[in-house]
Amino acid sequence: MSAITAPKGFVAGGVHAGLKTSGKLDLSIVATADGKPVSAAAVFTSNKLAAAPVQVSRAHLAASGGRAAGIIVNSGNANAATGVAGYEHAEQMCELTADGLGCTADEILVCSTGLIGIPMPFDVVEAGIPQVVASRSTMGGTDAATGIMTTDSVRKEVIHQGSTFKIGAMAKGAGMLQPNMATMLAFLTTDAEVEPSDLHAMLRQAVDKSFNRLTVDGAQSTNDTVIALASGAAGPADPAELQEALDSVCYDLALQMADDAEGSTKTVIIRIQGAVDDLQALHAARAVANNQLAKCSWYGKNAYWGRVASEVGASGIAFDPDLYSVSYGEAVTAAAGVAVAYDEAKMAEYFENRRIHITVDLGLGDGVGEIVTTDLSHAYVDENMGKS
Amino acid sequence: MSAITAPKGFVAGGVHAGLKTSGKLDLSIVATADGKPVSAAAVFTSNKLAAAPVQVSRAHLAASGGRAAGIIVNSGNANAATGVAGYEHAEQMCELTADGLGCTADEILVCSTGLIGIPMPFDVVEAGIPQVVASRSTMGGTDAATGIMTTDSVRKEVIHQGSTFKIGAMAKGAGMLQPNMATMLAFLTTDAEVEPSDLHAMLRQAVDKSFNRLTVDGAQSTNDTVIALASGAAGPADPAELQEALDSVCYDLALQMADDAEGSTKTVIIRIQGAVDDLQALHAARAVANNQLAKCSWYGKNAYWGRVASEVGASGIAFDPDLYSVSYGEAVTAAAGVAVAYDEAKMAEYFENRRIHITVDLGLGDGVGEIVTTDLSHAYVDENMGKS
Repeated sequence: MSAITAPKGFVAGGVHAGLKTSGKLDLSIVATADGKPVSAAAVFTSNKLAAAPVQVSRAHLAASGGRAAGIIVNSGNANAATGVAGYEHAEQMCELTADGLGCTADEILVCSTGLIGIPMPFDVVEAGIPQVVASRSTMGGTDAATGIMTTDSVRKEVIHQGSTFKIGAMAKGAGMLQPNMATMLAFLTTDAEVEPSDLHAMLRQAVDKSFNRLTVDGAQSTNDTVIALASGAAGPADPAELQEALDSVCYDLALQMADDAEGSTKTVIIRIQGAVDDLQALHAARAVANNQLAKCSWYGKNAYWGRVASEVGASGIAFDPDLYSVSYGEAVTAAAGVAVAYDEAKMAEYFENRRIHITVDLGLGDGVGEIVTTDLSHAYVDENMGKS
Repeated sequence: MSAITAPKGFVAGGVHAGLKTSGKLDLSIVATADGKPVSAAAVFTSNKLAAAPVQVSRAHLAASGGRAAGIIVNSGNANAATGVAGYEHAEQMCELTADGLGCTADEILVCSTGLIGIPMPFDVVEAGIPQVVASRSTMGGTDAATGIMTTDSVRKEVIHQGSTFKIGAMAKGAGMLQPNMATMLAFLTTDAEVEPSDLHAMLRQAVDKSFNRLTVDGAQSTNDTVIALASGAAGPADPAELQEALDSVCYDLALQMADDAEGSTKTVIIRIQGAVDDLQALHAARAVANNQLAKCSWYGKNAYWGRVASEVGASGIAFDPDLYSVSYGEAVTAAAGVAVAYDEAKMAEYFENRRIHITVDLGLGDGVGEIVTTDLSHAYVDENMGKS
């Protein structure tokens, strides 16, 4: 659907450069139609082992004052833990792309996704960049979204139609769902007119409410990156509407990631309510979402609420063992801290859904927090035990 | 080997009361030989959903001023999230045991291990307690160690011979290795003479250096308990020697737990050195130890050091991506932040060991921390996906 080029002013493309031995697309570009820089903002991993492309993109955004003309993205190699050569390769990727677009290297952002600690076969990338630059068009969004995929089974794209503007978006992965093909990458374009600093604040909020509330295994990649470009071609937008649209697009992408997480069979939405405050609720929801034992029980279609309650109790937040209740979907499994009989046939039926909602009400206050996660399956172990 | 009765002044026993449908022993006792209270100390779970027996034992220790004459332990039901009835059952277990030993209920401690949220079939326990009290003897330690087992495949016992005293110990489980048969329980007896407050301080340190450095899946049970009784029959001990002995006994039990963790194929000792301080080193070691992706790689016998380094980088401690090294056993896999070639045949051979040592040197300071953990296998998922 070429989502990323839906807003006015953008082109995109994707080619097979040769990083993936499968022959699939592995090099993508998103750029402004005229090669001129526009407002840009990004949110990067906070991992101190940040990959070379993360460091280079961060530096370029700072140098350009929050403006960019294009993004070059490769899959098949993370260019992380690759030393000085890694930085040089990331920098060269920007230079080659800038040459093709007619802008400066500072106006290019770069992302990589793949194995950590493997030197990049740079000749392949070097030969591929002129090709991917040449491939760019207003119809190239689908190829671009394909070229960033690693173990994703489907492309992840969203188009949002606002009252005066559009947002287009594409993404891959899910917060370290794959160590071998690590990384969550998301790219958003809009034709709304917005200053770089405002775009950054808005993107930050949207990320906090979406990708930062998605956890597959609690790990943070060396390469996680979310980038937004705003061409301004549609003129100024209502800030509240734009914020809401960015929130909604990011949340949609996060849910798509969870639904497609490698080796998962369930998307589980953990909601803690009745907490002392929202922060405590979110903290406890994250603890449950990252709990290996609870994850196994969801895979087993097993409403073992005691495991969920125990994790909330262990999370350190204010908790009264005689007040809490636990529900799976509509079915209450515990109330006032003790077991409640429920219809087991209906529960078994509920567990046939892909998306499962678990709610813990602490009965203490108005705090609410929600985290989206997945189960822990045999296939997850399979995916993550091997080298490739 | 009746370890728990090796020190002078103790008896023990175990019977099948009927909580386990398998017919295996499920009710154990450890008591002073004369039924008189001695110095006692305990470390309990900090989970706010602490089980009824934890709450009752805590109250009894406070009421008795750190003295106890016996410990009654059942497997097959956790008596956790069981409301008011649960507290009453735990209290009644102490009363019945006290009647048998001729002491007060305050002088009895109680532990339970099994499923959370299931009401206790108390008639079975009520009938079993007089039997287990009657079964106690100086030879009953093996039955007692058997009666506390849940999914443990071997009894976990240690006897330590000091210069003037002995320590006997038994344990089950491994820090929430099983949600269904949850809980880590450990019991220590000694004939050293030591005040309750000193015993508590020593036990606290021993637990911090052993069980608190063992993690199977990062979760803390509702029932985790470590109890020490000191009869004083061997007279005063050298405090430094006694501390060292308690440390060593607890560490031995912790390693036994890791080696027998359900569904695990590897015991992995994560050592972080060269950190800014010990606290940071320990924090990073725990982060690596609890990382689902790293755990899968160990199961796959895969020296994917990038995953380990990434987790250290994400842990929030001081970290320089150009300084760290990673080793598996003697083999260096990364140095100065980049890959180092290693002998793959030798690495494959190393991964045939049950115990794997992974060392990350941060090159920043003198801080050292070590955590013992296990891998994440298909069998682990099997064990934890079902209800029983």
